[in-house]
Amino acid sequence: MPRTVSSSPVRDLLALTARPEVISFAGGLPAPDLFDLDGMRAAFDRALTRRALQYASSEGDPDLRARVAERMIARGLPTPGEDLLVTTGSQQALTLVVTALLEPGAVVAVEEPTYLAALQAFRLAGARVVPVAGDEHGVDPAALAEVVERDRPTLLYLVPTFANPTGRTLTPERRAAIAALADRHGLWVVEDDPYGELRYRGEHVPALASMSGRVLHLGSFSKIGAPRLRLGWLRAPAELLRTLVVVKQAADLHTSTVDQAAAAAYLAANDLSAHVRALCAAYGERRDAMIAALPGTVPDGSRWTDPDGGTFVWVTLPGGVDAADVLAAALARDVAFVPGASFFATTPDPATMRLSFTTNTVERIAEGMRRLAGAWQ
Amino acid sequence: MPRTVSSSPVRDLLALTARPEVISFAGGLPAPDLFDLDGMRAAFDRALTRRALQYASSEGDPDLRARVAERMIARGLPTPGEDLLVTTGSQQALTLVVTALLEPGAVVAVEEPTYLAALQAFRLAGARVVPVAGDEHGVDPAALAEVVERDRPTLLYLVPTFANPTGRTLTPERRAAIAALADRHGLWVVEDDPYGELRYRGEHVPALASMSGRVLHLGSFSKIGAPRLRLGWLRAPAELLRTLVVVKQAADLHTSTVDQAAAAAYLAANDLSAHVRALCAAYGERRDAMIAALPGTVPDGSRWTDPDGGTFVWVTLPGGVDAADVLAAALARDVAFVPGASFFATTPDPATMRLSFTTNTVERIAEGMRRLAGAWQ
Repeated sequence: MPRTVSSSPVRDLLALTARPEVISFAGGLPAPDLFDLDGMRAAFDRALTRRALQYASSEGDPDLRARVAERMIARGLPTPGEDLLVTTGSQQALTLVVTALLEPGAVVAVEEPTYLAALQAFRLAGARVVPVAGDEHGVDPAALAEVVERDRPTLLYLVPTFANPTGRTLTPERRAAIAALADRHGLWVVEDDPYGELRYRGEHVPALASMSGRVLHLGSFSKIGAPRLRLGWLRAPAELLRTLVVVKQAADLHTSTVDQAAAAAYLAANDLSAHVRALCAAYGERRDAMIAALPGTVPDGSRWTDPDGGTFVWVTLPGGVDAADVLAAALARDVAFVPGASFFATTPDPATMRLSFTTNTVERIAEGMRRLAGAWQ
Repeated sequence: MPRTVSSSPVRDLLALTARPEVISFAGGLPAPDLFDLDGMRAAFDRALTRRALQYASSEGDPDLRARVAERMIARGLPTPGEDLLVTTGSQQALTLVVTALLEPGAVVAVEEPTYLAALQAFRLAGARVVPVAGDEHGVDPAALAEVVERDRPTLLYLVPTFANPTGRTLTPERRAAIAALADRHGLWVVEDDPYGELRYRGEHVPALASMSGRVLHLGSFSKIGAPRLRLGWLRAPAELLRTLVVVKQAADLHTSTVDQAAAAAYLAANDLSAHVRALCAAYGERRDAMIAALPGTVPDGSRWTDPDGGTFVWVTLPGGVDAADVLAAALARDVAFVPGASFFATTPDPATMRLSFTTNTVERIAEGMRRLAGAWQ
């Protein structure tokens, strides 16, 4: 083995919490009761033609790319279909970017805490991960400027909208400052955006990718439609995209043509934006239910984020509490969450936890929070 | 860019030959007229349940793994389902193995010529590729022993049964000798086996993986069922499999759950082996048609392989002919093939070409070979 690898603690935990009696706030997946199964079944039925089983380009189904581009344009990000590469989920997009851009020893700047699977991909590539300080408004551009000066990162990785695990959103002013920094220093920025459409209140914030040509924008259907299809996309400047397509060829030649054709058929026959609005209505209530239950659930002195969208609330427990111990007690009460320590690139804070509010109904959230309250006793 | 990458000439060519008027002997895909579309449509319909959209392990759908294991056991390769990892096509399996086993500068031994996309994956990883001499019976174990002694390869890559691009099959005696070498020197062997079930004459040859614990066996549905689903599998010793699962998490978390559930549903409801027998009957006739047409198609002094199965015939033209020039003339006559040069790890032989006989009907093969005969004039 060239490099030390370890399994994802989140995925290990998800395997543990697959028991139906567990109310899980651990996973970040869409609610199964809100899947549009009939729409998907019809889309697959239409997609399964001989044509869908013919030649497939590594770039992806042209019809799907055009439809994804249309949706991005509608959200304020000008995107020609040719600038898009369809990926096997946005996790693959991230790994393609890592392969194309990072040498072993390269430096990657990240928010702290940040998305665990991204940290794993950077470590697997032998990169050095450097945290950038921030606050409730996301990373601080001044802190980033210092990191750029000192550590010369190749890449900055961000989930700027409704971040995993904190739910925080980077302000428009900070986005503009970071875009300018990226342009000035030739820094690549990965804007990982699986949650951007899931806004429950407040104003839409423009994509980082609309502010600089150094931004790689990663999107996915996993959080708004079909979580298990593994369909994502990557928007990149043309020259870099050519390299990424070659890396994609080596990775898996192309993404499942049937799944791509089904997604294109789904988008042709259904109003995905209306589906997303319905998701937002339901998720917003679930968010409110969890936030409302938190004061009665966690110990006095706890703090938590107040996300405007997405999937996660991030809780910081009062000093001395180890969330890993709480998890053991919680699992004994058939409720689960993810201890926050593994989301840190450098020094973990064991007194943190990530709670997902999207997967369970309001009633299940109330019951789960009651169970969780018992875990401190 | 850390490493020089270039696009696959075969995939570039496939894009060119997608015009319907072209009779293409270039791609190695199953014949679209032989897809079981109705069976697949029914399988997807059954697979699209809420359960199929729930938790998915990186190892893959347990039902699918059990069914694949059953088929491998039936072909003489004892395989517990736990030894299998479902991959996004066997191209991904190869890239996972490369990531898990190869440091930049590591040596990979290969047959020459060999599968182009494997060469690309090794090069992308910064490995040094060393050819092993062989003949019509596959690589020569004595030549391999010399390479092992001199170059200390980490990995030997083989398509031992109906090889791409030559159609050759490694004899059982040579397999045993190579397995013994692998055990003795701690050499890893990748047995890439997408074509093994497509035998049109002669006796079944036991898998290399049945002879040594150092063999990673790669399988795929692409050539026997559903080419565009990107469903493959990797059989590896338990300890290495654990590492490969972590690398798989970083690559794309897991393979499309819908596609996996559909494949499992297909295997539950259909006799895939009967479908494969029907494929073999049709492909055997196509093979015979192409072999019969070759003497009237290629210039005097040409030689070609005589495959017992698989997809490809490998033609060596008389000295001085460059297959790339022939291709240009062939494309002008609406017929295509792949020039052989890119399948060589070291010194390319420009007077070689790869012809696929599976994609076209006997009638189209006859017409395509007539067109090809004109390309020398």
